[in-house]
Amino acid sequence: MQRTEISTLGEFGLIKHLTEPFKPANPSTLKGVGDDAAVLDYAGKRTLVTTDLLLEGVHFDLTYVPLKYLGYKAAVVNFSDIYAMNGEPKQITVSLGVSKRFCIEDLEALYAGIRQACENYGVDLVGGDTSASLTGLAISITCLGEGEEGKIVCRNGARPNDLICVSGDLGSAYMGLQLLEREKLVFDGNPDAQPDFEGRDYILQRQLKPEARRDIILQLREKGIVPTAMMDISDGLSSELMHICSQSNTGCRVYEDKIPISYEAAVMAEELNMNIVTAALNGGEDYELLFTVSMDDYEKVIGLDNVGIVGHMTKPELGLNLVGRQGEEIALKAQGWNSLEG
Amino acid sequence: MQRTEISTLGEFGLIKHLTEPFKPANPSTLKGVGDDAAVLDYAGKRTLVTTDLLLEGVHFDLTYVPLKYLGYKAAVVNFSDIYAMNGEPKQITVSLGVSKRFCIEDLEALYAGIRQACENYGVDLVGGDTSASLTGLAISITCLGEGEEGKIVCRNGARPNDLICVSGDLGSAYMGLQLLEREKLVFDGNPDAQPDFEGRDYILQRQLKPEARRDIILQLREKGIVPTAMMDISDGLSSELMHICSQSNTGCRVYEDKIPISYEAAVMAEELNMNIVTAALNGGEDYELLFTVSMDDYEKVIGLDNVGIVGHMTKPELGLNLVGRQGEEIALKAQGWNSLEG
Repeated sequence: MQRTEISTLGEFGLIKHLTEPFKPANPSTLKGVGDDAAVLDYAGKRTLVTTDLLLEGVHFDLTYVPLKYLGYKAAVVNFSDIYAMNGEPKQITVSLGVSKRFCIEDLEALYAGIRQACENYGVDLVGGDTSASLTGLAISITCLGEGEEGKIVCRNGARPNDLICVSGDLGSAYMGLQLLEREKLVFDGNPDAQPDFEGRDYILQRQLKPEARRDIILQLREKGIVPTAMMDISDGLSSELMHICSQSNTGCRVYEDKIPISYEAAVMAEELNMNIVTAALNGGEDYELLFTVSMDDYEKVIGLDNVGIVGHMTKPELGLNLVGRQGEEIALKAQGWNSLEG
Repeated sequence: MQRTEISTLGEFGLIKHLTEPFKPANPSTLKGVGDDAAVLDYAGKRTLVTTDLLLEGVHFDLTYVPLKYLGYKAAVVNFSDIYAMNGEPKQITVSLGVSKRFCIEDLEALYAGIRQACENYGVDLVGGDTSASLTGLAISITCLGEGEEGKIVCRNGARPNDLICVSGDLGSAYMGLQLLEREKLVFDGNPDAQPDFEGRDYILQRQLKPEARRDIILQLREKGIVPTAMMDISDGLSSELMHICSQSNTGCRVYEDKIPISYEAAVMAEELNMNIVTAALNGGEDYELLFTVSMDDYEKVIGLDNVGIVGHMTKPELGLNLVGRQGEEIALKAQGWNSLEG
């Protein structure tokens, strides 16, 4: 029998390959695989569904991630997917696989984090199960949300000349991860060493306890802006732009000097001798929102707090380009986190 | 810090303990944790949600489970949870964690099984993700379904004197598992040995490729029967009766000679020197429906195909009892599969 290595397709290629043969048949299925969340029509109202499976050693490292934070983050990243459709998360289910290494207090800490996230975002826990695992911890969360007909924003609606907007800053979560990895190595070499986290609160918080950008969604609603396309930035700006451009059939131009970067992340990158722009483009786990709006909405968009315009969409034949500080054009590559090749 | 072993609470106790502090806040959350599926109100229509996490080595053994069957079963057991609420499954999401041992053809086989299940039951795949895992295969499936207001059946509606009904037969899936485990041992001792599966098709099919009892739900609808309580039998009849009795605040009397057992399962039990009634009560993975109906529906119930009456509910103070063939009463114990203690 033929054996083709999974790495030949990559994560997104694999999902596409496996799910393409499925043809939705129910009238209530409006949109299936391929966006931040599925869109269902239940009695005229839009139901959004997204799901995530997190595995110890692949998606998180309990050496430096407290279980309470892990629970918080695992829930919030799902809420982020619902907001990224311009929806409101309402319910989650949580399934756990737990090895004998864990005790009840561990799971209480994990659930305390999930609960805090649910309370902060007004989401209900409605189900799930817990079973044994042979090794480590597995967390599967599914989130349901509500959206309004005609206001749900997918990845395929961007048009040439639309403005490309990004909330918050990019690359901080990645630099937080680099810091944690460095301190872990120091600790491995000398268990008496105390981690050096002074002045690093922001990048650590971005990595360990990210928030979903509900505030941006509320602002968009207040200002009467419905983006033409939107997604959350979980795999890095480059990778997400590729999704939007490919699904919208456009190209894009992004300006390097417009990419929002935090002071702390820049300092950390300098210290580690890394390129902060590369981190911002490819780092991942920012959970900021990337969205496109029509030029007509320019005046409204510049009034948004914590949102910057980083470029604009182009015709597809112009490709995906980063415009450097000297005006040079560099083709964007998606080097996003590909956990299947990790 | 205190460390309490998870086994002190057991699977159901643990879930209850962890989820109790969560208080549903959204008006669309009608029923959260504690039944086969959650019940949500989206614009007046009922949305049902159920989820399942299957881990290699804990929930399945790929030594004898072909991946296509595994995909089929993983989907069908979720459909079964939706039918058990008297609903119709409509959409699923599938998340996979995959170790390097697996190739694309493996995942194609798994998805082919999921697809066949989706086609057979009219369910759409609407999302999910695939990532790496350090060891083995992890499958997380969430299923959404529709139910009609006033016709959704939970576990808490049974009343004393209600008839207890069971579809199909019980214990066959468990005997199929015993057969597979035996042949695996033979194979481990002598890799040239050919497994001896002749005349065992039924119990193997029950273990490897179970079906959800949509046919029973359709019959109930046709006859105008709305059960007072219902669930699917995934952990064994004893365990499920305990759930219904505890949530409905009733006792029950079940008659040993009424428990439906297949010929093949009985033969297999005889051969392995096992008690087939114990297997039927505690074996699990039957995915038959257990439901209770008012005495007034007796005439309608006896007209149902593939459904038998096995006993009746009682006042809670009478406890949960099995009436043996000589009329002796035996207290029912839930020895159901507790994968956390496995």
